[in-house]
Amino acid sequence: MELLDVPVPLMLTKIFRYIDISKETFINNLKEVVAIPSISCDMKHRGDVMKMLRWIEKALKNVGAKTELCETVTQNYEKGKTISQPPILLATTGNDSKKKTLCVYGHVDVKNAQMEDGWDSDPFIMVQRNGKLCGRGTTDDKGPILCWIQVLEAFLKMKVPVPINIKFVIEGMHEIGSQGLNKLIVSKRNTFFSGIDYCCITDGYWLGTVKPCLTYGLRGLCYFTVEVTGGKKILDSGHFGGAVYEPLHDLIFMLNSLVDLNGDIDIPGLDKDIAPMTPTEESLYKNIDVDTEEIRRVLGVPKVKYEDCRIDHLMSRWRRPSLSVHGIEKVPSDPGVHTIIPNRAIGKFSIRIVPNQKPERVKEFVITYLDRLFDVRRSPNRMKVEMIFSAPAWVGDPTCSYNFKAAQKAVCIAYKMKPDLIREGGTVPIASRLHQVTGSSVLLLPIGAADDGAHGNDEKLNVSNYIGGHKMVAAYLYELGIKR
Amino acid sequence: MELLDVPVPLMLTKIFRYIDISKETFINNLKEVVAIPSISCDMKHRGDVMKMLRWIEKALKNVGAKTELCETVTQNYEKGKTISQPPILLATTGNDSKKKTLCVYGHVDVKNAQMEDGWDSDPFIMVQRNGKLCGRGTTDDKGPILCWIQVLEAFLKMKVPVPINIKFVIEGMHEIGSQGLNKLIVSKRNTFFSGIDYCCITDGYWLGTVKPCLTYGLRGLCYFTVEVTGGKKILDSGHFGGAVYEPLHDLIFMLNSLVDLNGDIDIPGLDKDIAPMTPTEESLYKNIDVDTEEIRRVLGVPKVKYEDCRIDHLMSRWRRPSLSVHGIEKVPSDPGVHTIIPNRAIGKFSIRIVPNQKPERVKEFVITYLDRLFDVRRSPNRMKVEMIFSAPAWVGDPTCSYNFKAAQKAVCIAYKMKPDLIREGGTVPIASRLHQVTGSSVLLLPIGAADDGAHGNDEKLNVSNYIGGHKMVAAYLYELGIKR
Repeated sequence: MELLDVPVPLMLTKIFRYIDISKETFINNLKEVVAIPSISCDMKHRGDVMKMLRWIEKALKNVGAKTELCETVTQNYEKGKTISQPPILLATTGNDSKKKTLCVYGHVDVKNAQMEDGWDSDPFIMVQRNGKLCGRGTTDDKGPILCWIQVLEAFLKMKVPVPINIKFVIEGMHEIGSQGLNKLIVSKRNTFFSGIDYCCITDGYWLGTVKPCLTYGLRGLCYFTVEVTGGKKILDSGHFGGAVYEPLHDLIFMLNSLVDLNGDIDIPGLDKDIAPMTPTEESLYKNIDVDTEEIRRVLGVPKVKYEDCRIDHLMSRWRRPSLSVHGIEKVPSDPGVHTIIPNRAIGKFSIRIVPNQKPERVKEFVITYLDRLFDVRRSPNRMKVEMIFSAPAWVGDPTCSYNFKAAQKAVCIAYKMKPDLIREGGTVPIASRLHQVTGSSVLLLPIGAADDGAHGNDEKLNVSNYIGGHKMVAAYLYELGIKR
Repeated sequence: MELLDVPVPLMLTKIFRYIDISKETFINNLKEVVAIPSISCDMKHRGDVMKMLRWIEKALKNVGAKTELCETVTQNYEKGKTISQPPILLATTGNDSKKKTLCVYGHVDVKNAQMEDGWDSDPFIMVQRNGKLCGRGTTDDKGPILCWIQVLEAFLKMKVPVPINIKFVIEGMHEIGSQGLNKLIVSKRNTFFSGIDYCCITDGYWLGTVKPCLTYGLRGLCYFTVEVTGGKKILDSGHFGGAVYEPLHDLIFMLNSLVDLNGDIDIPGLDKDIAPMTPTEESLYKNIDVDTEEIRRVLGVPKVKYEDCRIDHLMSRWRRPSLSVHGIEKVPSDPGVHTIIPNRAIGKFSIRIVPNQKPERVKEFVITYLDRLFDVRRSPNRMKVEMIFSAPAWVGDPTCSYNFKAAQKAVCIAYKMKPDLIREGGTVPIASRLHQVTGSSVLLLPIGAADDGAHGNDEKLNVSNYIGGHKMVAAYLYELGIKR
């Protein structure tokens, strides 16, 4: 890959130098926060989530931020049992009306991790291996949050004024659906969330392992359950097989009707609202470096769809809806030999939706279709389809927003490379929510690489990405602060 | 129901009286064996299975039996770990060459049970509630085994010679597939299993709760797994949904193709070998008292198949093959919200087969069909169908065998009712095996009632069935022993 000859602005050279000499300290800080097992899905670790929030609050105060821990809703976690959710941390650095204001979102909670999942070392004791910082939360999202705070420290220590005001939104419930976050943002839309010019989320990953990227789009999600109920009891297939209408037969029929032979969505109407391709969007795809054979190899699958067409492959992941069946509840999934007829079966599937598709319309198409199908089947069992969760797709304006221009420039300064402008197929509901509430441009600025394995075993963040991330963030702040 | 006026033969009156006065003792004995948690599927309880076998061995010795505990095979229960299986108990009472010889099969092991499954009281502390003996194993199969031993005690105590020689086969691995039993029977076909005139299995249940029955047929079983494997890793549906061929889509397609819209088998060839209905068989169906509406109510299902035709309903359970899907392995089945694309999915289904169907032919039809279907689908994933277990169907000769005539007479004596001659839809592989090896007539003589809930919570045996069962067994021995 050819490197660009982009000079580092004078003001940033001091900052970059501070970052370079602080490398070991920054790594030690990351080690310190990885050691706090802030696992949000495990009630036992709620205290650790709180500890993490306090750690970050203190660090933000040290770089001059004003902070506030906002209580949110109470969570029902079992029938009749409730637990207070961790608060959401809001922080502000700078209050200069002549400067622009950036809103940064991050989360301090992590997914569960244990040696049995196949980790090479304790997931909560960060170790350095071959230039990689290995441990739970290194890349998702503790490393990226530290980048922001430590860059502010660099400005402070180097006595360089921070070029922009920053408002931080840091939560500890991201990995279990950010309950309470939405409500908080809406309730503070005219206070904390007013006067914001740009938003930045340091989530997501590069498309590969070498070239940085900026993410300007995400698919949304419509999550469904289809439940078929027959009788009140699980029956023995010997006694009653052949004499009853089996709920699992019904459910399998319904789930099979959702996709065609190729595994593509086969629900009437669902293709109606998809945003058409624009020439600008098309041109963005053309510039992206991606190798479908390499992806196939990394995923270990026998074949990817559209293997001969790079652009089609990316479009299938980023800008076309897809449907996946995730599991079936109430039905045995263990290795045993079962001869039961389950009396109830709940299929779970989700559709990743794309710009212009509205969750409510998708819900209507799906429910109408499955209801009609079930009528055709004439089963005496009961069938119920529900959309239990949804989030709209999000797409930013990468070619005309200054937010993206500044980030692009920042990447050039920090990495001497022009970033790919990409979308991601996953769903980060906060992106469209921040755009909606602040009215400003939202940008996803990934710090980690494609192979970081965020939710898997041996999660890591390359030292080069961690240090490069600091420089990218510093350059981004610098670029955003330039008078235009 | 009208009761028959069948006199009790003089020789049996003493036996029946002994049974009546021993009621409390017999109930206490059952309580004693229920308290031994001989759960065969749980390695921790292997000692209890052994304890049960020893208890029964001692009881058989007390009524004059010669016993032998035969070691069987070693079981692999985890990768690299083996455990000795409980031995099989063989016992002989009587050795009079002028008498006929009966072989009785039973098992002392039980399915697991715990309060959390919804029991009203500790499953291993038998209690009496409304004429019911509630506890794990009361009806399946500890109660029935005690009937035999205690009837022998009655003959002994009343100084009435037992009219027939009996050979007992008692095992402790029934609930987990009777591993080792087959091998033992074959190895002793010319010794222990020679010279047998009749076989009796006191397993199964009455068709309802009032009228006894004799069972002359059972469906067999062909158990299949269909495995679809895509890549090496579980993928995120956000990142890769739409770009990969999802194994679960493939599997659902395959499973859906096994049955038609009505849930009936749709595999070419599978109907080829089914034994045609004979006039004799048809006449047996006509005499059976069964109410499809009552069955529907007991099962709690919205509708049973063939609800308007009693005979068709029974035929669908007893003499037609059926296909049930039991579960899907490697795919989440818990209540959580998952957004994964499983990289592997194993469907489990079984076909209950009927007379004239051969497991090997069924296997061939199924594999040929699914292989062809998968070719049509053109998925790049790997698909593998396997038949992991099979047992042939069994059908006896209820109208001409003296075994059935004697049992019929015994029921009339003990219950003043003519039993229904029924089949069952389940599979008891020992039935056809005993017929094959001994060449004699096999009979299933159910002691429990339809609502005993053998493998479920609150398993019970009615006191009336337990005591009636003793009388029925005594009368059966008497009838079998009559010189013809």
